[in-house]
Amino acid sequence: MIHSRPEIIHTHQTAPTQFVGANGIRFAYRRFGKSGGVPLVFNQHFTGTMDHWDPLVTDGLAATREVILFNNAGISNSSGEVPTTFEEMGANAIAFIKALGLKQVDVLGFSIGGFVAQEITLQAPELVRCLVLVGTGPRGGQNMATLTPEAQQIFGATYKVPEEIWQAAGREFLKRFLRRTENRDPEVNEKVAPAQIEAIGKWGVQREGSYEYLKTILQPTLVINGDNDVIIYSINSWILQQNIPNAQLIIYPDANHGSQYQYPERFVGHVSMFLSE
Amino acid sequence: MIHSRPEIIHTHQTAPTQFVGANGIRFAYRRFGKSGGVPLVFNQHFTGTMDHWDPLVTDGLAATREVILFNNAGISNSSGEVPTTFEEMGANAIAFIKALGLKQVDVLGFSIGGFVAQEITLQAPELVRCLVLVGTGPRGGQNMATLTPEAQQIFGATYKVPEEIWQAAGREFLKRFLRRTENRDPEVNEKVAPAQIEAIGKWGVQREGSYEYLKTILQPTLVINGDNDVIIYSINSWILQQNIPNAQLIIYPDANHGSQYQYPERFVGHVSMFLSE
Repeated sequence: MIHSRPEIIHTHQTAPTQFVGANGIRFAYRRFGKSGGVPLVFNQHFTGTMDHWDPLVTDGLAATREVILFNNAGISNSSGEVPTTFEEMGANAIAFIKALGLKQVDVLGFSIGGFVAQEITLQAPELVRCLVLVGTGPRGGQNMATLTPEAQQIFGATYKVPEEIWQAAGREFLKRFLRRTENRDPEVNEKVAPAQIEAIGKWGVQREGSYEYLKTILQPTLVINGDNDVIIYSINSWILQQNIPNAQLIIYPDANHGSQYQYPERFVGHVSMFLSE
Repeated sequence: MIHSRPEIIHTHQTAPTQFVGANGIRFAYRRFGKSGGVPLVFNQHFTGTMDHWDPLVTDGLAATREVILFNNAGISNSSGEVPTTFEEMGANAIAFIKALGLKQVDVLGFSIGGFVAQEITLQAPELVRCLVLVGTGPRGGQNMATLTPEAQQIFGATYKVPEEIWQAAGREFLKRFLRRTENRDPEVNEKVAPAQIEAIGKWGVQREGSYEYLKTILQPTLVINGDNDVIIYSINSWILQQNIPNAQLIIYPDANHGSQYQYPERFVGHVSMFLSE
């Protein structure tokens, strides 16, 4: 019996960078994993590109669903400018998702990517089946209008994480981070950080009733963080859970902002279980 | 080929009530599930017996490990008196576990059973591999020295939950609760509730530094609760996670004190995953 040529199964390392146009922007993206269900769209952290995701996380989730990474407007090899509001970043992300012809997706956001994920859900609720919010917080959350004192100490003026603050689990991630050796994204240009910081300032402003919008997020939501996140304080994950009507919260022990890189297998297990329910 | 007679696999419904003596007490207990690994010992809530566990939870966990239910001293068909401190209840539980000849167990406690589970761990740390704390809180937690206003409203003077407060998920649990039809435990006598309430009063007293003891619990710990527990406020689960060094927290949406009965499959999935890591 002769089989037809099997489809090439791509991974985090091998998925080609593709491009699609929408909103006047040429978006860079990669798709891989098990197709046929609802894809999971990843929204990245401060100054990050597609290469800053952990292959243990992306490939782990790609075992049970299609994974879509992308660079939002103005990031790395995507054209356009980084807007100075998360509302606009969310609108760009929606344009990107629709340009792929997708009618429904699951949305994951890490750190400021979680702000974008919330905006996608608020602006296009029909597009979003489930929401996964990792190491993030609500509009007007606690200590979110500026970098936290700890974050200022870490990033200084360079926005680079100095070598000495990486712990053992972080060093393991740094190795995985370099697994993809070909066709990596260019690093972001010098205009990205100031624009994102301006947007963070607007998002983080504390106002009376600033959590009310969370009550309109009706999607099943999974909130995950480390128990000692010094970049976006962990209590903001509690606030997300207490205000989003159908939100589950998972807090990992002895973990900071990047808890999913510290416990990648556990994270993949929890997210897969949540999305498969 | 002739097989030897297969071992009878017992379930929540069929496991016989057995007895073992220790500390001058005759403890009633039931064992069932997959033997060979580390058994999981369940510690029950206020005025509850072995029959008050949800068969979906006990049988669900018994699929991957041995489950041990028991009535602590003075409860139902166990002899002795209910002590008026959780320290003594913990000591009795340890005596029971050792009387079964077990060298190491996983310990699960729900509500005041979570106080007993903490005491077991503090008094016999070598006996406990992993700890699961459900719908519970620390010594001196928030609003724990007396019944919360909501609990007083619910229980009144009878300590019975009136029919009208059960929601749909609760009614489903009530059906499961009656699945075991033979050899059920007698309900507790009238001395149990006052003794347990006296113990709650001592446990709940707020003192400076009253969470310090949690830092000595070094076992991998899983803390689970509903997001709106009005019996032991949900924030106490957050406090447990923030103070026990290796604790993971999971909060379920739209759920009260008995969240594990509302999401039994999800609960079984999370606890099994945690205990199997």
